[in-house]
Amino acid sequence: MATIKDIADRLGVAVSTVSKGLNGAPDISEELRQLVLDTAVEMGYRTKKMRKEEHKKLAILVENMEYEHEDDFGYDLILGFRQMAYRDNWAVNVVPVTPRLMSREKYNTYMLKHGYLGAFAMGFALKDNWMGQIAHTDIPTALLDNYVPLNQRVGYVGTDSGEGIEMAVRKLYDEGHRKIAFLNGSPNSWVSEQRQAAYINALKEVGLKPDSKLTAYGYYVADSARYHVPGMLKEGATAILCGNDLIASGVYEVCKSEGLKIPDDISVIGFDDLPIASELTPQLSTIRQDRTELGKCAYFTLNSLIHKVSISKTMLRPQFVERGSVGKSKR
Amino acid sequence: MATIKDIADRLGVAVSTVSKGLNGAPDISEELRQLVLDTAVEMGYRTKKMRKEEHKKLAILVENMEYEHEDDFGYDLILGFRQMAYRDNWAVNVVPVTPRLMSREKYNTYMLKHGYLGAFAMGFALKDNWMGQIAHTDIPTALLDNYVPLNQRVGYVGTDSGEGIEMAVRKLYDEGHRKIAFLNGSPNSWVSEQRQAAYINALKEVGLKPDSKLTAYGYYVADSARYHVPGMLKEGATAILCGNDLIASGVYEVCKSEGLKIPDDISVIGFDDLPIASELTPQLSTIRQDRTELGKCAYFTLNSLIHKVSISKTMLRPQFVERGSVGKSKR
Repeated sequence: MATIKDIADRLGVAVSTVSKGLNGAPDISEELRQLVLDTAVEMGYRTKKMRKEEHKKLAILVENMEYEHEDDFGYDLILGFRQMAYRDNWAVNVVPVTPRLMSREKYNTYMLKHGYLGAFAMGFALKDNWMGQIAHTDIPTALLDNYVPLNQRVGYVGTDSGEGIEMAVRKLYDEGHRKIAFLNGSPNSWVSEQRQAAYINALKEVGLKPDSKLTAYGYYVADSARYHVPGMLKEGATAILCGNDLIASGVYEVCKSEGLKIPDDISVIGFDDLPIASELTPQLSTIRQDRTELGKCAYFTLNSLIHKVSISKTMLRPQFVERGSVGKSKR
Repeated sequence: MATIKDIADRLGVAVSTVSKGLNGAPDISEELRQLVLDTAVEMGYRTKKMRKEEHKKLAILVENMEYEHEDDFGYDLILGFRQMAYRDNWAVNVVPVTPRLMSREKYNTYMLKHGYLGAFAMGFALKDNWMGQIAHTDIPTALLDNYVPLNQRVGYVGTDSGEGIEMAVRKLYDEGHRKIAFLNGSPNSWVSEQRQAAYINALKEVGLKPDSKLTAYGYYVADSARYHVPGMLKEGATAILCGNDLIASGVYEVCKSEGLKIPDDISVIGFDDLPIASELTPQLSTIRQDRTELGKCAYFTLNSLIHKVSISKTMLRPQFVERGSVGKSKR
């Protein structure tokens, strides 16, 4: 364990100054006192009070999301978060969360029991037990793609879906498309609701009438295309906007099996710009989310919340990446 | 200009320690060095090195906003921004902007000519020449309380007015108020529009009907109260929500001159939590914006934009600070 002398040497001040800081003496500034305490904690010096506290640990809670491989959506998010967190000497654990865990244990209890001082929660659905509890938690929590009103300890991080979908719809409209379908991600999700509203809004902006037969929820899996794309084609869709690139890869399969060429017969746009987007043939035009930066922003938000700075939203702009999957409409 | 001794006294450390901090000596900690630098910046001390690195320059552009004294709205914003910017060795110039300057010179031209690599723009009105140009600029720009769609180089920083106004209106409603007036800030301002919409929305949320005779624009000056408060009182207002604390101080004057006691006869709520809020009698309940943190978030946003990370929004939550200016409605 570090001694008071170690702390004094590290900070370049007298031992007596460190003592004053640790004991809350009135003749040093509040800022210096804080620095002495911060340094003491960092160097492993522990007063009795500190000894009761756990190690400096954060959790990345993951539900409904792949993250273990480079081409998974969550991979870069975790990487960006970790890169920033390690600079401030946080240990970061990635914790897969299941409905079973959420029903067995309350959010606050879980966090306290494991000594986590804050969490970055990714992939949670609106109806999850923990989402209801996070709305009222006093544990600093940054949420990816979920928003909670009025709670000073909870912040949102995400990409502006509205702008992304507007750019995509405008691009399709400019290429002559008038029947633009949307195969969204999972229902019961805050971000899917935002995107559904953005899609309808963007259609109205260009003067098109939303048609419920041209939209469906695809649960962020490629396979969902098989169930929804044939109906959309039957309704006359000339372009399909997708909730993510995996769904788009499924749309590719279905269209090809129906003898349609991309982009000559049908245009497809993805979301996220996962590695798969540039591996498809033709390469997929998509709405890019910068996931590494989102992870960094999540850390910035969480670290602010831990320091009692109530960031409610940190939002990144998407980019529309043009590749080869959008063509002129023939109709 | 502050001396090294002033900084040492303020922090409660030796003069030699401050010297080490300013000169980057290896035998004091990075954290203490940072604290010394932050304090030096705050106290207006500048090293030779700081003076030399003026080529790496950012501008804080200020219009329609007081910032020179501790009790001005802009003061802490600039302080927070500077504290963060100096850590990355930026020189920061504060530039007062006038309509004349904006009509004489284009935004991009001004920035390039003076070698600014980015700007934090505070207090701009929607119709300002430069606002129209910033919508399409490629120079990294963080806007306080102004939002520009789709531009990858421009980000918004602000406090969630909607939540602040909702908290204030709910508080007043819970105390029995049914005629809640709103003396807003300046018209032709993005944030005033947001707050006007939030006020109307909050009234509807609690089941009250908006009444146009109970709202007016007060240009963020105390004097505006003289023109608008008598009419609001005549309409039966029992509470007045104000666009900032200065307006609230004007409302205090008018109410007192009409023989009304605060909070017995009329309730008043401010916005911002400037120092004046706690100097009024009775002390003013207000919607607090953490201006130092807003300034820090502005730097975070601008620095991200400079590094090609497109943050579109960084939003802080307000706090409702209860003091002595809200009472039960007698009607």
